[in-house]
Amino acid sequence: MKTIEPQQLLEQLNWRYATKQFDAGRKIPADQWAAIEEALVLSPSSLGLQAWAFVVVQDPAVREELKAASYGQSQITDASHLVVFTARTDVTPSDVDQYMDRIAKVRGVSPDSLAGFRGMIEGSVLQARDTAGRAAWTSRQVYIPLGVLLTSAALMGLDACPMEGFDPAAYDRILGLAEKGLTAVAVATVGYRSTEDGYAALPKVRYAKQDVVLHV
Amino acid sequence: MKTIEPQQLLEQLNWRYATKQFDAGRKIPADQWAAIEEALVLSPSSLGLQAWAFVVVQDPAVREELKAASYGQSQITDASHLVVFTARTDVTPSDVDQYMDRIAKVRGVSPDSLAGFRGMIEGSVLQARDTAGRAAWTSRQVYIPLGVLLTSAALMGLDACPMEGFDPAAYDRILGLAEKGLTAVAVATVGYRSTEDGYAALPKVRYAKQDVVLHV
Repeated sequence: MKTIEPQQLLEQLNWRYATKQFDAGRKIPADQWAAIEEALVLSPSSLGLQAWAFVVVQDPAVREELKAASYGQSQITDASHLVVFTARTDVTPSDVDQYMDRIAKVRGVSPDSLAGFRGMIEGSVLQARDTAGRAAWTSRQVYIPLGVLLTSAALMGLDACPMEGFDPAAYDRILGLAEKGLTAVAVATVGYRSTEDGYAALPKVRYAKQDVVLHV
Repeated sequence: MKTIEPQQLLEQLNWRYATKQFDAGRKIPADQWAAIEEALVLSPSSLGLQAWAFVVVQDPAVREELKAASYGQSQITDASHLVVFTARTDVTPSDVDQYMDRIAKVRGVSPDSLAGFRGMIEGSVLQARDTAGRAAWTSRQVYIPLGVLLTSAALMGLDACPMEGFDPAAYDRILGLAEKGLTAVAVATVGYRSTEDGYAALPKVRYAKQDVVLHV
């Protein structure tokens, strides 16, 4: 196991910032991008349910359309890579079936042996929440992989900008998400900061540690 | 800038798992824990608003109370450290004032120069959402630092378990969160896996990459 020192973690987290202007000429090397995609796949989710999909948009024409649905923000077209974080609009019994099948396959166990776990998911997700509650819950989950991506990118020296300032309905239409049972929740643009991005040099604004980390 | 290679990232993300049984005898060294707290402070948030607090609970008696409000799950008392991720129950004009004051102080600019940004926050958070909508929004945000913590811990070789299986109302009461305008949303227990935790050896269950990472 090859771990990192606390100082390296903090240097990279202090180095990152919400990039406003990307260098449109620089592309992320394939091995680094593959690691970002794999980090998304490996992200934890509540109950392991993975009620999400990550849409990587490389088609320049589609990115122009998305930019128009994002208040014209240049990151959408200029960043090396764009990921739309989408959540399932509902969780159905068939989603739970699919998940149980996956566990059974990966771990080589019988679906019957998962009955207890299945019952727990049915109780806490399908029965304890209504449709709107389930949608709110799946939407929250996708912020975990967003945090995973932002941390992973910073550690590899890749710039990124997390974004919520876009029209989700327009994204759903442009990317054909509704027919897949998905809806757009957040975006991450990833690449390299432009030397002209003045935001890179501004001091990071955070509340003092004692105001946000409370000890009991 | 000292970055990590893709392979190191993936090795650590594959090493991590939702730890079910912690070694109650092992404590995280102070410098590593300080880095985890700092990583939480540095976490990105929408508009930079940081409508959250992270409650680190070390008092054994309080952890016993929280365990009782968490279906008796042993991680709550056995992990080296416990963090309760809390979200502000609302965002008020005075929260926005406080944020503007912080920006002005950190960056040495006049509050007047932030009028445009302030107006944008008022429009998108205070006016475009009702109280329930704002609470849903702040609750989503705290999953970003949850993802940051889980990734940071894995890279430093610390085990962790993200948890939603607890009674938020009981947590709010036990930790006195309501009077601080906060509510408990998620928990992370962090420490070292017990050699007796059979879950550590199980294959990780994830959907195939092509099923969750879509390309356009």
